Amino acid sequence: MERAVNFNAGPAAIPLEVLKEAQGELLDWKATGMSVMEVSHRSKEYEALHNEAQERFRRLAGMGSEWKVLFLTGGASSQFFMLPMNYLAEGRKASYLVTGSWSKAALKEARRFGACAEISSENPGGGFTRILKTSELDIPSDSTYVHLTSNNTIFGTQWKTWPDTRGVPLVCDMSSDIFSRPFPAGDFSLIYAGAQKNLGPSGLTLVALREDFLARAKTKDQLPTMLSYRVHEEHNSLYNTPPCFSIYMLDLTLRWLEKNGGLKVMGRLNEEKATLVYKAIDSSSGFYRNPVERESRSSMNIVFRLPSPEAEEGFVKEAKAAGIIGVKGHRSVGGIRFSIYNASSLDNVKTAVSFMEDFKKRRG
Amino acid sequence: MERAVNFNAGPAAIPLEVLKEAQGELLDWKATGMSVMEVSHRSKEYEALHNEAQERFRRLAGMGSEWKVLFLTGGASSQFFMLPMNYLAEGRKASYLVTGSWSKAALKEARRFGACAEISSENPGGGFTRILKTSELDIPSDSTYVHLTSNNTIFGTQWKTWPDTRGVPLVCDMSSDIFSRPFPAGDFSLIYAGAQKNLGPSGLTLVALREDFLARAKTKDQLPTMLSYRVHEEHNSLYNTPPCFSIYMLDLTLRWLEKNGGLKVMGRLNEEKATLVYKAIDSSSGFYRNPVERESRSSMNIVFRLPSPEAEEGFVKEAKAAGIIGVKGHRSVGGIRFSIYNASSLDNVKTAVSFMEDFKKRRG
Repeated sequence: MERAVNFNAGPAAIPLEVLKEAQGELLDWKATGMSVMEVSHRSKEYEALHNEAQERFRRLAGMGSEWKVLFLTGGASSQFFMLPMNYLAEGRKASYLVTGSWSKAALKEARRFGACAEISSENPGGGFTRILKTSELDIPSDSTYVHLTSNNTIFGTQWKTWPDTRGVPLVCDMSSDIFSRPFPAGDFSLIYAGAQKNLGPSGLTLVALREDFLARAKTKDQLPTMLSYRVHEEHNSLYNTPPCFSIYMLDLTLRWLEKNGGLKVMGRLNEEKATLVYKAIDSSSGFYRNPVERESRSSMNIVFRLPSPEAEEGFVKEAKAAGIIGVKGHRSVGGIRFSIYNASSLDNVKTAVSFMEDFKKRRG
Repeated sequence: MERAVNFNAGPAAIPLEVLKEAQGELLDWKATGMSVMEVSHRSKEYEALHNEAQERFRRLAGMGSEWKVLFLTGGASSQFFMLPMNYLAEGRKASYLVTGSWSKAALKEARRFGACAEISSENPGGGFTRILKTSELDIPSDSTYVHLTSNNTIFGTQWKTWPDTRGVPLVCDMSSDIFSRPFPAGDFSLIYAGAQKNLGPSGLTLVALREDFLARAKTKDQLPTMLSYRVHEEHNSLYNTPPCFSIYMLDLTLRWLEKNGGLKVMGRLNEEKATLVYKAIDSSSGFYRNPVERESRSSMNIVFRLPSPEAEEGFVKEAKAAGIIGVKGHRSVGGIRFSIYNASSLDNVKTAVSFMEDFKKRRG
């Protein structure tokens, strides 16, 4: 079997080593005589896995015990409402740094729960091609929190430095670049991410939040039980049955990350991969065009255009024939997109860059 | 490897055939060169699987195209609030038939959203040992819906006939006995179930609802986007990334169900299995005692007591040593519980019954 060069935006590539490990023990996990999918979430075997995954997450992120790691579901999209539902109330407001479709969606949900200030980098004609500049970040100091999206999957932009919030708790949707590079955990109060890009299969949403920020959340009687951060923290994400298999896959993925050097090594590798692709774009004499301001370029999702829609269509088709999958841009913007998350190897990226050069020769 | 006799209450046993199939294609699904976990939820391969699972679900349930099948997350516990959130409003009320801990929890969440009538079979001293009688079912005719829990995992009781609601839409939490027996779909307006007992691993919540009932749900602007039944129906449960692997496992499990004769055959087999265990209890001269009224006995979760807590502890320990797993009663009630869902074979049940007889001989 030939493995695909998988550039899917999410669900995305999973390290082959992780998949093989899961495959090997799928019928009998830890000599239980059961699949990990068949084991009770109240068993000591499962609880050990659950706690190990949380511990590994904290260790990789450089988070101390003041951080609580929750295993939830519903995707980042559910955090769009769950966050403001837990924090906004009469007299409280939030600020949203809007740099793409997902932060826009997060803001829309938040407005149902309270006043929100919007600071946006949207272009006058629509669309986003850059991250906000430091000079634009006038975050109201009375904000309960300020929300940003670290990487914009659709527009191919990424925050490279973190804003100085002057004491306002920073909340970050890291769905599409979590654990792709080091980040200063101490600067954040809550981060969340759907697992399906860098942390395993879909079906699991990570929420990590600091005790002091949790203390500001609404109490559990003010919310439906399953929507209260406090409830999930008090029950160690075992209030009800968690998505056990996804958590198992998360743990295997985190173990793979640790074995391969953690976030620093991963960050350097991801830079190297991205640089190769951007170089192929920039040296193509305009055949490939990346619309993003240089200092906002994402190292996870690289978007580019070709001279015509026909050329783009041909590119997607021929890439697929060459075993390079998932390169079509998001349906809302078109074009080409390479999503090169942690599990996309340097070799895969080199294969794709060769394909780009070859395609240009034939069509340029 | 010796497979466990798995009587876990959920996550629970999965058919070996299903696990083997998943294992066989875990690295390369449908010749994509990718695991099913790595495939985009927008790909034609995944969409075909998604739609096939819905179609299979409807076919097995005897549901026509007027039924919409949603793939959600958050467990049945999330439906406890999502249902009333979508249906209750000023001037609308719901009725709850309370026959155990889960229906009680569902009622508690519903009360946050509107007036609720409670009809309960709780014993005067607490606890539940029976289902409601027909004579007790005086359901207020102005109810927007009436909610019941078809099988009570903790107390080992099960609805054997369905209530005549006199036109009030019937909503049912079928988490612990879905597809374990035929049921008259036409009598229901909405059913829901966590997948992790009879339909695969945890991480997926099924909601099936009829068009005419959906039409009475709040509009999408009245709710957070991810909490609107209408949104999920309009987007065919692809508004955001669904739990693809769990849906894949659901499809394999449904295929296994169809291959093995569907709900009628499954219902007969589950009756046969349950009868064996109840016979062992009833013929034990009081060594084993099932506290449930005979006509309310569950064929999925069989609860029983032994003469002393020490005997029960010994039973759990020795069962485990004999490879029979998950027989400890729910922590809220104690005792012993056999959860014998679809994937627990007749042979497994026979093994457990032999163990019961042997244990009684040694300890009785």
